[in-house]
Amino acid sequence: MTVKIGLVGTGTVGGGCIDIIHKHAEDFKRHFGIDIELVRVCSREPEQAAAHGVSDIFTLDYQDIVNDPEIDIVIELVGGTTVAKNIVIDALANNKNVVTANKALMAKFGGEIMALAERRNKEIAFEASVGGGIPIIGPLKHSLIANQIDSVMGIVNGTTNYMLTRMADDGMSYDEALKEAQAKGFAEADPTADVDGLDAAAKIAILASIAFNSRVTIDDVPAEGIRHISPTDLVAAKDMGYCIKLLAHAHRTPEGVDVRVHPTMLPVDHPLASVNGVFNAIYAVGDFVGETMFFGEGAGAGAAASAVMGDVLEVARHIQQGVAPIVGCTCTDELPFVPLDDLRTKYYIRFRVNDRPGVLAAMASVFAKYDVSVHSVMQRGALIDGGVVELVYITHTAREASVRQVLQEIAELPDILQAKPSVIRVED
Amino acid sequence: MTVKIGLVGTGTVGGGCIDIIHKHAEDFKRHFGIDIELVRVCSREPEQAAAHGVSDIFTLDYQDIVNDPEIDIVIELVGGTTVAKNIVIDALANNKNVVTANKALMAKFGGEIMALAERRNKEIAFEASVGGGIPIIGPLKHSLIANQIDSVMGIVNGTTNYMLTRMADDGMSYDEALKEAQAKGFAEADPTADVDGLDAAAKIAILASIAFNSRVTIDDVPAEGIRHISPTDLVAAKDMGYCIKLLAHAHRTPEGVDVRVHPTMLPVDHPLASVNGVFNAIYAVGDFVGETMFFGEGAGAGAAASAVMGDVLEVARHIQQGVAPIVGCTCTDELPFVPLDDLRTKYYIRFRVNDRPGVLAAMASVFAKYDVSVHSVMQRGALIDGGVVELVYITHTAREASVRQVLQEIAELPDILQAKPSVIRVED
Repeated sequence: MTVKIGLVGTGTVGGGCIDIIHKHAEDFKRHFGIDIELVRVCSREPEQAAAHGVSDIFTLDYQDIVNDPEIDIVIELVGGTTVAKNIVIDALANNKNVVTANKALMAKFGGEIMALAERRNKEIAFEASVGGGIPIIGPLKHSLIANQIDSVMGIVNGTTNYMLTRMADDGMSYDEALKEAQAKGFAEADPTADVDGLDAAAKIAILASIAFNSRVTIDDVPAEGIRHISPTDLVAAKDMGYCIKLLAHAHRTPEGVDVRVHPTMLPVDHPLASVNGVFNAIYAVGDFVGETMFFGEGAGAGAAASAVMGDVLEVARHIQQGVAPIVGCTCTDELPFVPLDDLRTKYYIRFRVNDRPGVLAAMASVFAKYDVSVHSVMQRGALIDGGVVELVYITHTAREASVRQVLQEIAELPDILQAKPSVIRVED
Repeated sequence: MTVKIGLVGTGTVGGGCIDIIHKHAEDFKRHFGIDIELVRVCSREPEQAAAHGVSDIFTLDYQDIVNDPEIDIVIELVGGTTVAKNIVIDALANNKNVVTANKALMAKFGGEIMALAERRNKEIAFEASVGGGIPIIGPLKHSLIANQIDSVMGIVNGTTNYMLTRMADDGMSYDEALKEAQAKGFAEADPTADVDGLDAAAKIAILASIAFNSRVTIDDVPAEGIRHISPTDLVAAKDMGYCIKLLAHAHRTPEGVDVRVHPTMLPVDHPLASVNGVFNAIYAVGDFVGETMFFGEGAGAGAAASAVMGDVLEVARHIQQGVAPIVGCTCTDELPFVPLDDLRTKYYIRFRVNDRPGVLAAMASVFAKYDVSVHSVMQRGALIDGGVVELVYITHTAREASVRQVLQEIAELPDILQAKPSVIRVED
């Protein structure tokens, strides 16, 4: 039997999927006995379909796909949470299996979508939604299930990792790095989702849900981006034996799930520290397996299409062999969330102040007042015009809420020149 | 229904499996609906079983497990290719599913064992045979199948990676590093399988078979170990921007499968270069996914047990859901092997010679005679007693057979003080 595929979305990833099918369909038959055929392609861009040689099966109306009784698997590559949601819901409702790369959709409506799939006894697969081509959802749902997963940390946004790498290695400013990333096609004209950490937040919500068997949505993930990171911070980090990465965190704690996205100082010998440029990596710790890391290309046509088509082939295999969905939603627990206020970690804080007597003493007394113990204070860089200096504080482990109080009160001191100092959490 | 497990072998990994079942059996039920029960344990060491609290289900005779009609899955953790082979064959012949961590067995008899499993319509799973706890066989058999895999390279032996790390970072000699590895329990009293690359050869045979859909056995893998590596080589590599790793290689070439194990100079910015100590990593390149890497603990009770139990749970899931084996042997092609003689790469060669006029010229003419082009020659280190120096050659890409001829002829020159110089292949 031939498994019939309908594809919605002919952008970069959709185009990659068509290319894979054209190049390897015969190999899939020979090696794995998997027989797939792309029977219908939909998008708003007929010329994209033409460029990949599928004009003959093209339609502008996705209903032609989700309503086609012949189609077994619908691939949704539209993105976003409006039309894409309709496509996925309609396809499942019409008893089709669905493969998607849509992290926003799965991070927001994953529970609802998986419940519908289960009612219809169909598969919903979304390996490509996190980490591009990197197999991570597969390993978490299969190879690693003998473990209690205690931590997942990921560099899951290639745009910001590219920018931070250029800032660290070549001394670029945030604005210069962003401009270059945009010129190279790594960042969009409106870079908000990337630089403010929202893309990473969606991805860690998906991974945390699987790793902790407890539903995490994007709305549960406090996210902070990289707009405030300066070359000074990157140099200071390097001098202390750290690098700065936009990390997506998910930790199991006795108080519940600690999940968040923010720039993080990481020791240079951490496995994630050498992940540079547009590469992604996901680091996971299990109680028996110990440390693991999964590394690869987080973006690009080929990588994401590899993950999408890996899912398609697996679902096709099951359809051909008459196998019902083997693993559906595994969110059987309802773990509480640890509020960001209760986070306990170390902090790097850079202030810009007037170089006057008494400033340090005044600041020290605020730290002491809120019981935030200081590990070191350093003056960074040269004296800036008019007797302005930059002071870098490293705290001992402290409570986030206390640090916020310190920052608020210090901001009101005389001679403090920034309302918002640069604050970076430190992971040891 | 409860899936009944029989375990043969109560060493480090077997003990880890028992611990996982005791700690997490209830979690497996709650999260995944997988209901397993360890019903019989066999080994030659009753006290090991006692230490893990399973004396009540202990037997000295593995026949009690492979012949027990109640048992669904047999875990083989005996190791080796004699008794272990009988256990695996008998279990399959008796219509049981088998999970094993046995790389030697699968690298030598994988074809025969998988054919038997297919005839009996049972599963044979062996994730733990390569890379300890790292999910790599799973990703290659599932997530990555949309690709043609072009290369797999692995640091798959923790013992030698630990030794090379200590030699590179702390200037230890081979003997010192081996002694320390033995003291720490990372190397066995007879370290042959590790230091001569045989363990790595078995593992790359398994990975290559899956990656290239063509059977590779351990006998097809030329293996060279690390006995000849000296601190001088490690320092020279570092100065040139390289590190030295014992790499297991498998490359798809137009001429066939190029598979081999040997110390390899790797640029320090290669993803594998920062994999140190007892950690393992497998790097794979696919035509769509690009570069990927899978990193983790290659040895130790917990890591390998995680992989074994991941397989057990997956098979149990299938049994409970009435699903026949989904993926069996995928070696559908019969690719030829590229003889090592035909390898074309760059070479690092370190000679020890008398520092006399004419030596360099004589050597140069031998290189020229066999058409091996030299990129650089350097004298390394200080003059040794009696006017002896060490010369390091780096060649341009050359054919292995030609380099062998050069070495043979240079060995016969006057003033050459080693019959066998240190030769390390360079990967760029």
